[in-house]
Amino acid sequence: MAFLDANYLLTTDSAKALYGEVGGLPILDPHNHCDVKALAEDRGFQDLWEAEAATDHYVWELMRKCGVEESLITGKEASNQEKWMALAKVFPLFAGNPTYEWIHLDLRTRLGISLEINEENALAIWEESRRKLQTPEFSPQSLILAMNVEAMCSTDDPADTLEYHERLGQSRLAGRVRPTFRPDNAMNIQKETWNGYVDRLGARWNRSLQCLDDFLDVLAQAHDAMGKLGAVASDHGVLVPETFSPDRKTAEALFQKARSGEKLTEAEAVLFRGFFLNEMAELDAAKGWVFQVHYGAVRDVRASLFRKLGADVGGDVSDHNTAALEPLLPLLNRFDGRLKVVLYNMNPAHNATMAMLTRAFGANVCLGPAWWLNDSYVGIRSQLELGASIDLFSNMTGMVSDSRKILSYGSRFDVYRRTLAGVLGDQVDRGQMPMSVGRMLARRLCYERPREFFGFR
Amino acid sequence: MAFLDANYLLTTDSAKALYGEVGGLPILDPHNHCDVKALAEDRGFQDLWEAEAATDHYVWELMRKCGVEESLITGKEASNQEKWMALAKVFPLFAGNPTYEWIHLDLRTRLGISLEINEENALAIWEESRRKLQTPEFSPQSLILAMNVEAMCSTDDPADTLEYHERLGQSRLAGRVRPTFRPDNAMNIQKETWNGYVDRLGARWNRSLQCLDDFLDVLAQAHDAMGKLGAVASDHGVLVPETFSPDRKTAEALFQKARSGEKLTEAEAVLFRGFFLNEMAELDAAKGWVFQVHYGAVRDVRASLFRKLGADVGGDVSDHNTAALEPLLPLLNRFDGRLKVVLYNMNPAHNATMAMLTRAFGANVCLGPAWWLNDSYVGIRSQLELGASIDLFSNMTGMVSDSRKILSYGSRFDVYRRTLAGVLGDQVDRGQMPMSVGRMLARRLCYERPREFFGFR
Amino acid sequence: MAFLDANYLLTTDSAKALYGEVGGLPILDPHNHCDVKALAEDRGFQDLWEAEAATDHYVWELMRKCGVEESLITGKEASNQEKWMALAKVFPLFAGNPTYEWIHLDLRTRLGISLEINEENALAIWEESRRKLQTPEFSPQSLILAMNVEAMCSTDDPADTLEYHERLGQSRLAGRVRPTFRPDNAMNIQKETWNGYVDRLGARWNRSLQCLDDFLDVLAQAHDAMGKLGAVASDHGVLVPETFSPDRKTAEALFQKARSGEKLTEAEAVLFRGFFLNEMAELDAAKGWVFQVHYGAVRDVRASLFRKLGADVGGDVSDHNTAALEPLLPLLNRFDGRLKVVLYNMNPAHNATMAMLTRAFGANVCLGPAWWLNDSYVGIRSQLELGASIDLFSNMTGMVSDSRKILSYGSRFDVYRRTLAGVLGDQVDRGQMPMSVGRMLARRLCYERPREFFGFR
Repeated sequence: MAFLDANYLLTTDSAKALYGEVGGLPILDPHNHCDVKALAEDRGFQDLWEAEAATDHYVWELMRKCGVEESLITGKEASNQEKWMALAKVFPLFAGNPTYEWIHLDLRTRLGISLEINEENALAIWEESRRKLQTPEFSPQSLILAMNVEAMCSTDDPADTLEYHERLGQSRLAGRVRPTFRPDNAMNIQKETWNGYVDRLGARWNRSLQCLDDFLDVLAQAHDAMGKLGAVASDHGVLVPETFSPDRKTAEALFQKARSGEKLTEAEAVLFRGFFLNEMAELDAAKGWVFQVHYGAVRDVRASLFRKLGADVGGDVSDHNTAALEPLLPLLNRFDGRLKVVLYNMNPAHNATMAMLTRAFGANVCLGPAWWLNDSYVGIRSQLELGASIDLFSNMTGMVSDSRKILSYGSRFDVYRRTLAGVLGDQVDRGQMPMSVGRMLARRLCYERPREFFGFR
Repeated sequence: MAFLDANYLLTTDSAKALYGEVGGLPILDPHNHCDVKALAEDRGFQDLWEAEAATDHYVWELMRKCGVEESLITGKEASNQEKWMALAKVFPLFAGNPTYEWIHLDLRTRLGISLEINEENALAIWEESRRKLQTPEFSPQSLILAMNVEAMCSTDDPADTLEYHERLGQSRLAGRVRPTFRPDNAMNIQKETWNGYVDRLGARWNRSLQCLDDFLDVLAQAHDAMGKLGAVASDHGVLVPETFSPDRKTAEALFQKARSGEKLTEAEAVLFRGFFLNEMAELDAAKGWVFQVHYGAVRDVRASLFRKLGADVGGDVSDHNTAALEPLLPLLNRFDGRLKVVLYNMNPAHNATMAMLTRAFGANVCLGPAWWLNDSYVGIRSQLELGASIDLFSNMTGMVSDSRKILSYGSRFDVYRRTLAGVLGDQVDRGQMPMSVGRMLARRLCYERPREFFGFR
Repeated sequence: MAFLDANYLLTTDSAKALYGEVGGLPILDPHNHCDVKALAEDRGFQDLWEAEAATDHYVWELMRKCGVEESLITGKEASNQEKWMALAKVFPLFAGNPTYEWIHLDLRTRLGISLEINEENALAIWEESRRKLQTPEFSPQSLILAMNVEAMCSTDDPADTLEYHERLGQSRLAGRVRPTFRPDNAMNIQKETWNGYVDRLGARWNRSLQCLDDFLDVLAQAHDAMGKLGAVASDHGVLVPETFSPDRKTAEALFQKARSGEKLTEAEAVLFRGFFLNEMAELDAAKGWVFQVHYGAVRDVRASLFRKLGADVGGDVSDHNTAALEPLLPLLNRFDGRLKVVLYNMNPAHNATMAMLTRAFGANVCLGPAWWLNDSYVGIRSQLELGASIDLFSNMTGMVSDSRKILSYGSRFDVYRRTLAGVLGDQVDRGQMPMSVGRMLARRLCYERPREFFGFR
């Protein structure tokens, strides 16, 4: 097979047939990190570095692994073209990592450029892509339409103004872009930045947040406001998903302590976060939204990066040892039968634990897709195979892009669909399910299931 | 390949040849949960729900995952036919999970029904299967003979009367059905039900259990009694397999404390259980029996189910984090060279740890098959491949059904044999072993090894 | 495919083409346990037991698993021929374990014997191999040259005299054999043997080690001495890789306490070892050497073996639960950008954690190959696939033999190369990378990358 040809990842006739069933379906993306402002303003991309690398610290990390100096990655001095040339030069060394496939796919599928990315082709790709990216056909909104994105959920803080979501409601993307309620900043009472954040949150909603009730009221207001703009889910990122909730009085005391500037102990912070997650789950339960938890990211472990560049620049890892089962039980039991939940793990050593847990808690508690550094052919494949052997394909919630880059949504979904087609095709070829059932499951996971579970309509 | 045709799971010529070697061998099943009373009475099944789902909470769990309401799963009101119709309606959503394959296989192999299970075929399957199940040809004993079960070990409590095992000794199954000594209820001193259980155990053996010696005597009596009925193994289910044994005086004090109705601390309960397991191992060592440990099941995590329906109805999970290595060492070292041990883990993230541990302890400490929610094509395959690359195929102990459903024993073993044939066949095809050695290992794991290790003769 | 034929492990055309690229490259082996004295003296092997089993406790363990009695494994009475006959008799039971393939490969590739090892062929193999092994063509040095070993690093204690490395510098292997600085004995302050070891270390360097500075000076001297003999790396084996370093004053106090014969608490020993590892890393950083850590071996768990035979005779395992991420961070951060590091894990449940960690720390922190009991087709394959999907193929450091047996180096590298060719070939066949890039990565991992990273030149 030639590199990235039509049968990319499809090595059997069954896989090809199943992909034929789903390759062209609209995209439903319940989680990404798109820049809503840029999307609303429909500002076009100046060049390929901006479109593919400027906002993607996963690309930065791999450049660092190949020895590219930081000035050519995040430096202020170097031009985008210089950075692109540095990226292209080491790009063949990315082979085997999904980033290698995604960016090549983006070029082929979206920009019609099928050159291999390397030093030799770097300039030709730069110029051709720049010519195209600067036309209206490649503006962010045009790309969303070209990729057939029917629904996509951004990641939004309760302190955000949401004005760009409002503008999108008036744009040609009306009805397609939805906010997601992501109150991590409000939850993370252990952080030094929490008090400042709470002030900002109050200011955003014109409230002085004197007590826990004020705080929760404002969060409920933000939740409502996102709902009016089409939100269907909340999203919570935690290291250990501790969900034991102390009583309200305890939580109030912790809130006051932190507001007064005193530092909470780690045990106190755990209690507050547990209380908080349960309150957020109540908001979701009341509206029939989906409560998403992704746990296990150990952030900013590389001190030199964090010192120089701050958070979200690389240096995030996960640990086989992170506890997940016992911590999740209080919330899962409290909301049993009245809350839709999706669980995402970061370390593949937890795949079986998560599948057993979602299996145990009935129709509403579901396994999300292979997430984060597991979002690759091998990661998706093993998570689907193991997940479905313990829990059920049919109860999973399909794919999310989790991407910062609009240009790349299509490729993320395409890799998932091809990998799923391969997994189901192999089961058909081993006689484990009839082809008709394979087709049904492929369509379900690529479209029907997320549409119904998240309530995109 | 057509769904479940003759080459089900066999995608290469080598796999087919190896399966040809073992597909027809008698079944030796060292662990299952068969209803000995029903088997002794040879009461036929009224219908397919009774035969396939009424006793199988794994089926219940998957029905719940598909949104079937509890009344159609465990409700007292709904008829078996209504439940079957509910099951058949969602059955295509089970595809990918081994339950989908097992029940279809049972229908094909045992009942000669090759219709796909779905809403459309539900009634036809119901009626044809009912007609057949109600004939003597499909009584439990007939099924055991039809499946060529040479030996099978049920799971028996020391307080059980064993009268049905005695009756089986007079039946046409004479010599085929053996009890297994499973004293979990006697071990679980931390449970509220323990004191009542100990009273019942005493009553069963006409002894007042005043002290630890009485208690252990009665257990030894039960062990003897099972031995007379053909038992060759004990079986122990624990969360963390703590096997450090305190001295007898300490154990006596703990026994007395619990008998007096005082609650033990968790640390005390750990000590008692450690003592207990060592004592049980002594009984096995003295008789040359196999000591089976399966650890890591976190039971009844879904509180709503447990409240409504009690234990063994679903809601059991396992955790990647459970400790196993250090806890097992005291017992493995104490009995080194004089006790046959089989270890079964519940979470596949432990597969390598268990294989290393069995590898380290010589010929008598062996790896059991992929167990519980790992008993699937993908689970068996990865456990065999990893297990044999660390330890040895030849030292494993073959398959167990672990099943509550007689109708399904054949299918469980068939999936194992086909998967094993595929794993060995791939090694032959990669030039890793000669076909003759592959054949030897296939026969060994499917018949000779469990026969010799457990001592079925 | 016939057993171990030319296409062993190569099931596709792409794999064959890629192996064609690398099968004949010179061997660079940054870690093994060769007997430097025997190599320097170029003493030939008397027989196949001596060459293949006498120094290899991995073989011993598998013999034990097959029920061979200890007298025929490590006994002083039995002859080498008797031991070989015992090994050959059970050898077919090893199939599936890499040892089965390695020894067969050694026979074929090095000795030109392609008989299957079993009872029937045992004597013929014994005699033919003995005839050959006793000729100069099969002396250790001849084997090293025949296997095209361009560089190999032994494992050397700072108290070693290094005289045999000096002799090798004058031999026909000049420039090929390098020491590796392995100061575990100096680090393991918790061991009863530590004080005696420190005395021996002082004696070796003619210094009385009165204080921490003396101790560190002598280690630096040993480091220098090995550097003069071509060393390019240090190597450290730890259970939990705790790398938090206390200040020098604390370390001095711990040193004095231990030297005075007092036992350190476990917490104190952790601190001392953390300090020690950081000091050793400084030595490496100053010289541009590679700092290798392999963690997670739980040693000598089988008490009966340890009592009878001591350490390094089998009974080593690893645990899915061992912590690794947080413990490694202090050292990785302290030396960020100025130390080359290779991380090796022992339990495959840690593969993803390690790949994420190496990914996070830039070009100098790299993933080593599947190590120890993971050094098998299935272990190498899954570590490469998962490792490259998270981190990068191109940043890995290639293969090490980790072997005690010179005769077997070629086979270890050959299995790695064939497995790598299969992994890359599958990616080519799935359209994930062009063949040209696959070829580049194959060559890089098999030769260029270790050459450059370790600095073999």
